[in-house]
Amino acid sequence: MNTFGNTFRLTTFGESHGPAIGGIIDGCPAGRVIDQDFILVQLRRRREGDTPSEATTTRRESDHIEWLSGLMDGVTLGTPIAFVVRNSDCRPNDYDALRDCFRPGHADYTYQQKYGIRDHRGGGRASGRETVARVVAGAVAQQLLKEYNISIHATNQDLDITCTVQGVPAGIGEPVFNRLNARLAFAMMSIPSAASFAMGDWDIWRLPSNEFADAWQQGGTADTLTSTNHCGGIQGGISNGMPIVFHVGFHPPLTNPEGMICRMGDGSLKTVSPHGRHDHDHGTRLPVIVESMTALTLADFIPFSHKSPAQ
Amino acid sequence: MNTFGNTFRLTTFGESHGPAIGGIIDGCPAGRVIDQDFILVQLRRRREGDTPSEATTTRRESDHIEWLSGLMDGVTLGTPIAFVVRNSDCRPNDYDALRDCFRPGHADYTYQQKYGIRDHRGGGRASGRETVARVVAGAVAQQLLKEYNISIHATNQDLDITCTVQGVPAGIGEPVFNRLNARLAFAMMSIPSAASFAMGDWDIWRLPSNEFADAWQQGGTADTLTSTNHCGGIQGGISNGMPIVFHVGFHPPLTNPEGMICRMGDGSLKTVSPHGRHDHDHGTRLPVIVESMTALTLADFIPFSHKSPAQ
Amino acid sequence: MNTFGNTFRLTTFGESHGPAIGGIIDGCPAGRVIDQDFILVQLRRRREGDTPSEATTTRRESDHIEWLSGLMDGVTLGTPIAFVVRNSDCRPNDYDALRDCFRPGHADYTYQQKYGIRDHRGGGRASGRETVARVVAGAVAQQLLKEYNISIHATNQDLDITCTVQGVPAGIGEPVFNRLNARLAFAMMSIPSAASFAMGDWDIWRLPSNEFADAWQQGGTADTLTSTNHCGGIQGGISNGMPIVFHVGFHPPLTNPEGMICRMGDGSLKTVSPHGRHDHDHGTRLPVIVESMTALTLADFIPFSHKSPAQ
Amino acid sequence: MNTFGNTFRLTTFGESHGPAIGGIIDGCPAGRVIDQDFILVQLRRRREGDTPSEATTTRRESDHIEWLSGLMDGVTLGTPIAFVVRNSDCRPNDYDALRDCFRPGHADYTYQQKYGIRDHRGGGRASGRETVARVVAGAVAQQLLKEYNISIHATNQDLDITCTVQGVPAGIGEPVFNRLNARLAFAMMSIPSAASFAMGDWDIWRLPSNEFADAWQQGGTADTLTSTNHCGGIQGGISNGMPIVFHVGFHPPLTNPEGMICRMGDGSLKTVSPHGRHDHDHGTRLPVIVESMTALTLADFIPFSHKSPAQ
Repeated sequence: MNTFGNTFRLTTFGESHGPAIGGIIDGCPAGRVIDQDFILVQLRRRREGDTPSEATTTRRESDHIEWLSGLMDGVTLGTPIAFVVRNSDCRPNDYDALRDCFRPGHADYTYQQKYGIRDHRGGGRASGRETVARVVAGAVAQQLLKEYNISIHATNQDLDITCTVQGVPAGIGEPVFNRLNARLAFAMMSIPSAASFAMGDWDIWRLPSNEFADAWQQGGTADTLTSTNHCGGIQGGISNGMPIVFHVGFHPPLTNPEGMICRMGDGSLKTVSPHGRHDHDHGTRLPVIVESMTALTLADFIPFSHKSPAQ
Repeated sequence: MNTFGNTFRLTTFGESHGPAIGGIIDGCPAGRVIDQDFILVQLRRRREGDTPSEATTTRRESDHIEWLSGLMDGVTLGTPIAFVVRNSDCRPNDYDALRDCFRPGHADYTYQQKYGIRDHRGGGRASGRETVARVVAGAVAQQLLKEYNISIHATNQDLDITCTVQGVPAGIGEPVFNRLNARLAFAMMSIPSAASFAMGDWDIWRLPSNEFADAWQQGGTADTLTSTNHCGGIQGGISNGMPIVFHVGFHPPLTNPEGMICRMGDGSLKTVSPHGRHDHDHGTRLPVIVESMTALTLADFIPFSHKSPAQ
Repeated sequence: MNTFGNTFRLTTFGESHGPAIGGIIDGCPAGRVIDQDFILVQLRRRREGDTPSEATTTRRESDHIEWLSGLMDGVTLGTPIAFVVRNSDCRPNDYDALRDCFRPGHADYTYQQKYGIRDHRGGGRASGRETVARVVAGAVAQQLLKEYNISIHATNQDLDITCTVQGVPAGIGEPVFNRLNARLAFAMMSIPSAASFAMGDWDIWRLPSNEFADAWQQGGTADTLTSTNHCGGIQGGISNGMPIVFHVGFHPPLTNPEGMICRMGDGSLKTVSPHGRHDHDHGTRLPVIVESMTALTLADFIPFSHKSPAQ
Repeated sequence: MNTFGNTFRLTTFGESHGPAIGGIIDGCPAGRVIDQDFILVQLRRRREGDTPSEATTTRRESDHIEWLSGLMDGVTLGTPIAFVVRNSDCRPNDYDALRDCFRPGHADYTYQQKYGIRDHRGGGRASGRETVARVVAGAVAQQLLKEYNISIHATNQDLDITCTVQGVPAGIGEPVFNRLNARLAFAMMSIPSAASFAMGDWDIWRLPSNEFADAWQQGGTADTLTSTNHCGGIQGGISNGMPIVFHVGFHPPLTNPEGMICRMGDGSLKTVSPHGRHDHDHGTRLPVIVESMTALTLADFIPFSHKSPAQ
């Protein structure tokens, strides 16, 4: 299903080269002013990366957001917030060569196996462009979390991304199944090209027993609770007040600009040169997506009131 | 919430030193004979490990399962299957020393922060004993998956556990949020002491682009589809028919038999010697739990019919 | 939350005088051609009633549907189907008199109490215009049900509406909580101005015991199973193959064109003449909404395959 | 599925003549003392009716509740509360005559159609005995609601049951689909033998337009808000602070002690005399079940804190 979250929910839609990408945010509290500038900044980070260069895709979308509901004079009504971002720079014909073939490493084959049909143009629903809706909703969630002084920051180095969340109070999360760390893992592994997830120290399980358990600090609270943070701020599925730290590993981009050996409908193989525009270096675009999914996950655990903290 | 799954659902209950551990399996198809012996084998693996030794906990539970509903003459009715395993070997007084203190690395502090109360005896709900219910339900799920020739095998080496699933047909999973790999990550990270998760090759993101994408095999299907399996059998969130391979990393056991520096209710620190029985080497007990959670995850994606494949 | 259904799901959005009304259909099987004409017929019934006259609202919307995703060349992809219907005929200034007052019988007061803010223009989210999204999605659901030879027909007489569903096979529904009759009641009572719901015979509970139970017909099956249908085709929450019959009662329209005594923000009362356009006789517009919600409910119980029955 | 509710959840299990009936309450806030006496009073009302007589079933169950988890020293832990009530007075052999036949009006036929198997003893899962779990959990919910001064009272007259809820503050409920009235309808129609549901005045839709809308009282609040309560305290799906009033109609008991014409497996008809014990007058037992389902519904809308109002 295309819904993320239980109480703060995002439902997304859109194919890469269909008319539009968008979503519905359901469960956003009423009475909040939406900071449009912040959303546009996040969308630009998604589009151009944290270090814009010629390395990212040559596709250029203006990413104009049209808000269809849930706002009156820029203030949230508590009703569902629908938004649409048009796919203005579509050239679906560029993808004709891919209509009847399955690229290696891509989701072409699995979509066809599942649905018996797929939109072959630019990856269709499986395109990285789908993350536009995550970033818009994630930016709204980040604004709500700021009311609680929760801030999220992700960085990228060689497709291993560290994400740190400051300000999460102790007691957020659930034991047993719906653990905060399990939900973060679920959120991160739902990002296209995510391959691994680790809480706290990357090689946490290599530590000897007597060094692993984070030692208490005398009288410590919040981010002074323990002297180390091997566990990454979550114990038994529930936050302990320390910064939440985790890592996500991504696999490299899959589309080889020099040509790929594709599988045809009849099982035979054929070399195909892609004419569409694809990511060559998605690494710098990933941090904002990690931040967005983190924000959506945390917002789903916070019991927002329709009265804002400022009121 | 204490429910796992959407259509094949397990809801669990029980504190380590309360009267019982158990659960309700909802969504199990009707007309299946439950193989009690297989469940007991799995429970024994959970209790004693794959290589029973003196290293595991000295607590000994007979783990007798009482079935309360959902079965008539050993055959499933399609109604909820409730089961109870008594905590016969309880010595709650052993834990009096832990009543007012929070052990380092454990969930004592976070439970107290969340609920304002906790069962301090043997970890209460946060105890590894809670996994009894997962193993019982997981064993039922594994039996259902066998009807589809799906088999699951997990191994353990130095707290890095590799799990391999054979026989999952292409097309299982969802794109976008509810991806099969994201659901597996969610399931694995919900296991007590799980710290990391990786699909396919552990260091997948270190491969150069042109080597990562698994090459098609001419006319290949199912487990001959590609010549390598770097992606671990899932592309775009959906299975491709190759074996599903993933890794889970666990942190070492936390209870130091020689004593721990605990945090007291007033924020002061104090050295406490644990008198209860705790795991000293949980590594060999983890594979059966990984298998169980994998089975519960897959069973939730398979549209079982009340008519079994044999009928 | 603004989502209806579990496996076949509709999420709606939109205020009466905001930019648009619309929704996302998630869980629609792939490979189906959508009959646009049928959807437009249903929308017209919603707009003008089954017996168009001057009695219904003077607001005229062209109800042009824009499909944003989930379709390629008019065929469903299995991905979420987003649609938008613009509110072209908005005159929000007509409602200035209602900005600071709560009409009697309306949801003005309760929205304000819940959210602390509301869109006062034409009822905002609480307007009957919200049912546009239900009718579009319901028409899609009805097309899917036709593949199973299930047809739905609702009529209206004095705001008591009888709805009959032909062709539902025996065995659809759930026992205990998620009963088919309970789900139909939930769906019907979610329609604006619905006040009551009854299965089968309206005064079913007045029958003596020995007459109530529907007598079996020798060798009967499907719609010849029993000689009467007092129960309305559902027993123990599960369909028995007979036609499903139920009634919905609606309260009369609330907006009095001659003026209403409204409650002001300070608790005082004031007579207000409505200048906006409102329903004066919604009775003839209700059958198509009842049919739509019935279709959405049934579609949520049918395990559609991405391969259509015709394939 | 056998779960009721989203945040305050009851999952039930048990066949009438299996080992036990019971359930898991998930989402109960921590730190509450459970009033066992109140639960036993409610269970007795369920067993013997509000006016105990020889009219109700001759089956006698002591209804001893065993609490398996979620409580320590009688105080809730915030973890799932599992409870079991044994079926001590089982005489499954009494039902041998019903093994191969379907009684008229009962769920025998529909269960067999859905599952291909059923527990024929005393109705199995479809027995009224399943409501034991609803009453236990409903009594727990009622205690939580008392903290908010919400009280529930249901009465019975000729199988039309009026239920009145005092003290629900304005603003409880959701607009659009998850309306409080729709959820109440869902809850009531899930009660065995429920046939109809109506908000407020039973014949509400017969009123002329200008009389239906409840008139505001000058400066009124809570239960003095309006001078009449035709709508039953809910407008646009959200409570307005007035008492919530609704009606439920039930069909008469189905088992005819003088014999029934049953359908056999081969479609032929045969007169069968029931030897088991069945309800002859379930009317006086229904109010406590209506109250219980009302409490479970309301508890699911209230955002309980783990800190009780008294703290």
